[in-house]
Amino acid sequence: MTETDDAYDEPLFFRVIKYAENADRDVVDMVSGNPDWEPPAALREGLADYAEADPPELQYQASEGLRELREEIAARRNVDVSRVIVTNGAGEANYLAMAAGMERGTGSDFLLTDPVYPYYPGKATMLGGSSTRVPVHEDGHVDVAGMREAASDETAAIVLNTPNNPTGAVYDIEAVTALADVAAEVDALLVVDEVYDHFDFTGRFESALTLDRDHVIVTSSFSKSMGITGFRVGYAVFPERLVDPARTRHMLVNVTGSRPAQTAVAHALRETPPSYYESVRDTIRGRIDALTASLDTIGADYTTPEGAFYVLARFADFPGTMANVERLIEEAGVAGMPGEAFGNAYDDWIRVSLCTDRVDEAAGRLRKYFESR
Amino acid sequence: MTETDDAYDEPLFFRVIKYAENADRDVVDMVSGNPDWEPPAALREGLADYAEADPPELQYQASEGLRELREEIAARRNVDVSRVIVTNGAGEANYLAMAAGMERGTGSDFLLTDPVYPYYPGKATMLGGSSTRVPVHEDGHVDVAGMREAASDETAAIVLNTPNNPTGAVYDIEAVTALADVAAEVDALLVVDEVYDHFDFTGRFESALTLDRDHVIVTSSFSKSMGITGFRVGYAVFPERLVDPARTRHMLVNVTGSRPAQTAVAHALRETPPSYYESVRDTIRGRIDALTASLDTIGADYTTPEGAFYVLARFADFPGTMANVERLIEEAGVAGMPGEAFGNAYDDWIRVSLCTDRVDEAAGRLRKYFESR
Repeated sequence: MTETDDAYDEPLFFRVIKYAENADRDVVDMVSGNPDWEPPAALREGLADYAEADPPELQYQASEGLRELREEIAARRNVDVSRVIVTNGAGEANYLAMAAGMERGTGSDFLLTDPVYPYYPGKATMLGGSSTRVPVHEDGHVDVAGMREAASDETAAIVLNTPNNPTGAVYDIEAVTALADVAAEVDALLVVDEVYDHFDFTGRFESALTLDRDHVIVTSSFSKSMGITGFRVGYAVFPERLVDPARTRHMLVNVTGSRPAQTAVAHALRETPPSYYESVRDTIRGRIDALTASLDTIGADYTTPEGAFYVLARFADFPGTMANVERLIEEAGVAGMPGEAFGNAYDDWIRVSLCTDRVDEAAGRLRKYFESR
Repeated sequence: MTETDDAYDEPLFFRVIKYAENADRDVVDMVSGNPDWEPPAALREGLADYAEADPPELQYQASEGLRELREEIAARRNVDVSRVIVTNGAGEANYLAMAAGMERGTGSDFLLTDPVYPYYPGKATMLGGSSTRVPVHEDGHVDVAGMREAASDETAAIVLNTPNNPTGAVYDIEAVTALADVAAEVDALLVVDEVYDHFDFTGRFESALTLDRDHVIVTSSFSKSMGITGFRVGYAVFPERLVDPARTRHMLVNVTGSRPAQTAVAHALRETPPSYYESVRDTIRGRIDALTASLDTIGADYTTPEGAFYVLARFADFPGTMANVERLIEEAGVAGMPGEAFGNAYDDWIRVSLCTDRVDEAAGRLRKYFESR
């Protein structure tokens, strides 16, 4: 367990992407988590239709989001529509949720996992809080006992991400339930970021909303599920007692979200068949297989994602430092993320994103590179 | 001068709009500041084109905004592009600017005018600060001497809005310069919200950016100038030394803004001729004339807007209370905003917005109503 209270820096992401762009050779980008696949056809339709809308429809919707979108979300998540605030992506949803943790005045430390999505500790610092990271188990799953031990009166909220970026773990609902209990014991909130909920390859993923606890906030977005990280349409589902302050903060920061994007997403939610999501999952499954087959040949350690679309790989005598990531870009033509971007627990590893249709090419390059070392 | 530190409530706007919607008769909505006119044709084109963009263009742009949009803004405002952060409307721009005032640690009180756009004191409270309001002059112009007297070591920032909502005043650049000096004297920032800059009927409006001072932040948006409050595309121009922390906060709160909207606005900025903006101003001028002619007949006091698109009206023996606003809805079929929504200085007045093509109808109704009282 490590205590951190560091200022937020420009994410390592951008440094790696810039390095890859400036490389003197062709590089397969396995850095970013930006989907490369087609969005639902209905999303494009919804946006094209909106481009012809009458002037009143070009003006603000209600602060908490387009009513029809909130209703579609509420129906799918089986919650009362009053609990849903549509946000500027999961980024704002997590900000509002973590701010709710601080506002209660019952602690200012955020209990996170290591590895962690770097925005969480960044948000903690910006909110005037600190964060504590507890290493996950070897298999990438959350260490419930370790989290329980680290929780204290100082804890404002426990923040989880499942399916997890970068480990690919899909947390058991029992673990999430146990962590909801831990949060309740120290009078903290539990925030569960479920942005990869459509990328569950186990069939076991269960939303924390099923717990129906009044200190649990679930966040999500359509960035990944519809392949539109640029649209910035996400949401948070708050327990009733926490809705009002979150709505006020949302209004005072952003007034409301962007209506063209919300309108397109609402249309796509209504009109997109399950086969769209299944077909994207099939694509990811194929990419996982292609990459891990290559890693098997090399004899590298790796995580097989239960969910999301990242693989953590550990190559013999080749720790996942920034220097080695740069070497891999220059010498193999493959760009990944150094594990240190996510904390200490996986700093020997490199995170490889599967958001490219050139996974076969990358797999071949890695095989060739590590076999000839 | 009044000291306020009140919690932010659901704006009175929504209460009035709801009241008008539930009325048992036809009501002309002169409450909201949502443009009812057509956006630039190129805005619709830009959005329709974007609906066909390839998947990579549907993903995040840089956190600080679409490069081409920032460049268009920088060229028009004659500032270095590095100073421009594209935000989720002027709402977020003002939030970032006011947060910059707090972050310097040199005071936590915001010096505002009375009347005031209600979001400013709301943001002050949310940021953990307070606000002080100084009544404007009878003609709606800022009271520089009063502001100087109220400024203190506790002042984090002076926040102005010009052209002003609700008074319609276009502040002289000399006044803004003097207030920049006042801010400098107490080591505070000056934030100038210029969201109505395209609605200057005097030809005298000059942006605070021309001051070129390193403690002045200018905010704006395309919500009003392009008639698209729902798109949420605004921006802030920071002095160089304040850009980095603002960019970090923007990234941690919102990641970035919505790309469909930013793309459409960038296209519209490039392709829209000055005649579009002139024609919208002509429309507003016509509405001002129609309304004020009616107010002359009644013998009501009113402000003739130098800028923006609101008229403050004071009717004899009919103070601008919520009760009288409701009466006007029921008995005259005209909905305005009670002056008390903006502070104490204009609580006898009713704010009438000109965002409706039924200004003639409303003018006739008001004449008939007040002539028969």
